[in-house]
Amino acid sequence: MTVSATARRTVRVDLGDRSYDILIGPGLIAAAGREIALRLKGRKIAVITDEHVAPLYLDGFMAALKAEGIDAVSLVLPAGEKTKSFEHLISVCDSVLAARIERNDAVVALGGGVIGDLTGFAAGIVRRGSRFIQVPTSLLAQVDSSVGGKTGINSPHGKNLIGVFHQPDLVLADTDVLDTLSPREFRAGYAEVAKYGLIDKPDFFAWLEGNWQAVFAGGEARIEAIATSCQAKADVVAADERENGQRALLNLGHTFGHALEAATRYDSARLVHGEGVSIGMVLAHQFSARMNLCSPDDGKRVEAHLRAVGLPTTMGEIPGSLPPAEVLMDAIAQDKKVKAGKLTFILTRGVGQSFVADDVPQSEVIAFLKEKLPT
Amino acid sequence: MTVSATARRTVRVDLGDRSYDILIGPGLIAAAGREIALRLKGRKIAVITDEHVAPLYLDGFMAALKAEGIDAVSLVLPAGEKTKSFEHLISVCDSVLAARIERNDAVVALGGGVIGDLTGFAAGIVRRGSRFIQVPTSLLAQVDSSVGGKTGINSPHGKNLIGVFHQPDLVLADTDVLDTLSPREFRAGYAEVAKYGLIDKPDFFAWLEGNWQAVFAGGEARIEAIATSCQAKADVVAADERENGQRALLNLGHTFGHALEAATRYDSARLVHGEGVSIGMVLAHQFSARMNLCSPDDGKRVEAHLRAVGLPTTMGEIPGSLPPAEVLMDAIAQDKKVKAGKLTFILTRGVGQSFVADDVPQSEVIAFLKEKLPT
Repeated sequence: MTVSATARRTVRVDLGDRSYDILIGPGLIAAAGREIALRLKGRKIAVITDEHVAPLYLDGFMAALKAEGIDAVSLVLPAGEKTKSFEHLISVCDSVLAARIERNDAVVALGGGVIGDLTGFAAGIVRRGSRFIQVPTSLLAQVDSSVGGKTGINSPHGKNLIGVFHQPDLVLADTDVLDTLSPREFRAGYAEVAKYGLIDKPDFFAWLEGNWQAVFAGGEARIEAIATSCQAKADVVAADERENGQRALLNLGHTFGHALEAATRYDSARLVHGEGVSIGMVLAHQFSARMNLCSPDDGKRVEAHLRAVGLPTTMGEIPGSLPPAEVLMDAIAQDKKVKAGKLTFILTRGVGQSFVADDVPQSEVIAFLKEKLPT
Repeated sequence: MTVSATARRTVRVDLGDRSYDILIGPGLIAAAGREIALRLKGRKIAVITDEHVAPLYLDGFMAALKAEGIDAVSLVLPAGEKTKSFEHLISVCDSVLAARIERNDAVVALGGGVIGDLTGFAAGIVRRGSRFIQVPTSLLAQVDSSVGGKTGINSPHGKNLIGVFHQPDLVLADTDVLDTLSPREFRAGYAEVAKYGLIDKPDFFAWLEGNWQAVFAGGEARIEAIATSCQAKADVVAADERENGQRALLNLGHTFGHALEAATRYDSARLVHGEGVSIGMVLAHQFSARMNLCSPDDGKRVEAHLRAVGLPTTMGEIPGSLPPAEVLMDAIAQDKKVKAGKLTFILTRGVGQSFVADDVPQSEVIAFLKEKLPT
């Protein structure tokens, strides 16, 4: 299926003098040189990518830059979560400095969330902040991690514990690249798309229930879903850039999800992030129903949709055994601050009516997990 | 000489919701627990210091925290410029995370500029930004590096090339600790004090000419000099936090100075930073006179004062041989952007009348250096 260039959408992230555009549509890697040249004063770029993405898109991207007279160097890193380390951060900083990238030049992340988080962090610290462009190549990165300026690496003490807020100057979300994703990767990214409906857009969630096949097939519906997701995230980020309040809503499903990721030791054969979020969102609705905040039917509706697209929705679907409820609770408590036995959690009053609850009793969470864990 | 507690001065750095106080005066290490407890919600602190400072002040500082019920851990790093590296950044981040320092707790830098820059950088990236308190123990750190939020480490490509802007929440400048500095260290810090007069405070420079002995002796005059310096820097930082314009004036004397530091390979036996700044400020005035911007008498006046306090004022005073003018010019060009043979430089129209010049011909700088280099 081909899509006309008019299908291209632009979402503006409104952050004063640090505002930027997210361009969404087909053919944006081929058009990258022109879009970047329009916005960048400098003529030098360092492109950071990984060994999965490089064979598919690096040559085309470099050619697009060259065609506009932009001088570019590239660095190809190993693929995978382990790349979000100080070791690779040092090598990215070194490459950028060796290429003599100056104030008006830019660093580009060409890849998924790992490359985006690592490269954004490096851009945020080289010369105390360099220009940064995101070219996300996974659905998850296009609708979530490439927007909003959170960057970072992992520590032995936990995920994403070292990093900075550093907003990109431009995001180019080429929807053509999504055709090369595995169905499992696409579904995992889709969990974050559905999340925006569940946070505060019930109409969008209903639209996804009716149009998800078209979103998976590609074309206009997919672009619409991505643009709506980016706009939703842009609105939240513009209102609360540094997560002092409402930005926490973006963590819907993530508290349970992160605990499950930790419990499976981030083994992507067992569970990837989006799958953890899918199960986590169902659990958040079920737990809200248990707390008499919403109807059990809301949980059933969410579960039915995520199951229909092929996502896991119960802890029983995770291959291998899971630790007991108390151990999962410890993983949750490591992530969140526990005050006098109370947790902060994203709960909901129904589809599209989520809110930040800061008084969730730890004992209730443990009892709930015991019920839901497979026996 | 003892100074009454009423001698304590407070300078406010006005940065909206990130504003903070600099407290200046005697006895502030002993009073640190109370001053911190007044301002901090949390009750946990990680103190980063070095092996020169630790034997002198760490026990007293930890005791002051304990007396106020603040739970503190400490990390002692090697002293010296080499500590501003990724290796030590990683160990600071790890200590802070291992101590489970949370959002309302704080990281403290107890030391000179190296410890302040490194620790501030770590605080800026742990959990994407943690609270940070500076307790500067050198004159240079009290009047310059602890104020303004520039943090960072060195790279093989150059000094301070990796870092973030991260403002402290509080600066405690205990003027008692200056009594343990060597005369050479104190003089080096004094170069930065004189700099504030030369930038835009001719009355302050005249006051220093008349009162420098009292400043070196300690007591009220010293506190006055430090407070005036901190206020001067606070005003510049409040107006231009991220150095898009006038903050560059703080680099008066630093362009020549950095080139001399590089030429002596940062060998502190030959030249320390403040000495490079002293020679650099004299050169900046002499070069301005050569460009017919100010009178040669201004250069002579600046030189006479810096020489009176015991600072070097000519390149000939640096032990060992210096590279030729062209090599010094290369070091300057690495630091500064050169556009079509023109450099950006801080020049002056007279004492206290410095300005940012962005059209300095490289050829003039080389000819000037050739004249001034010892033969």
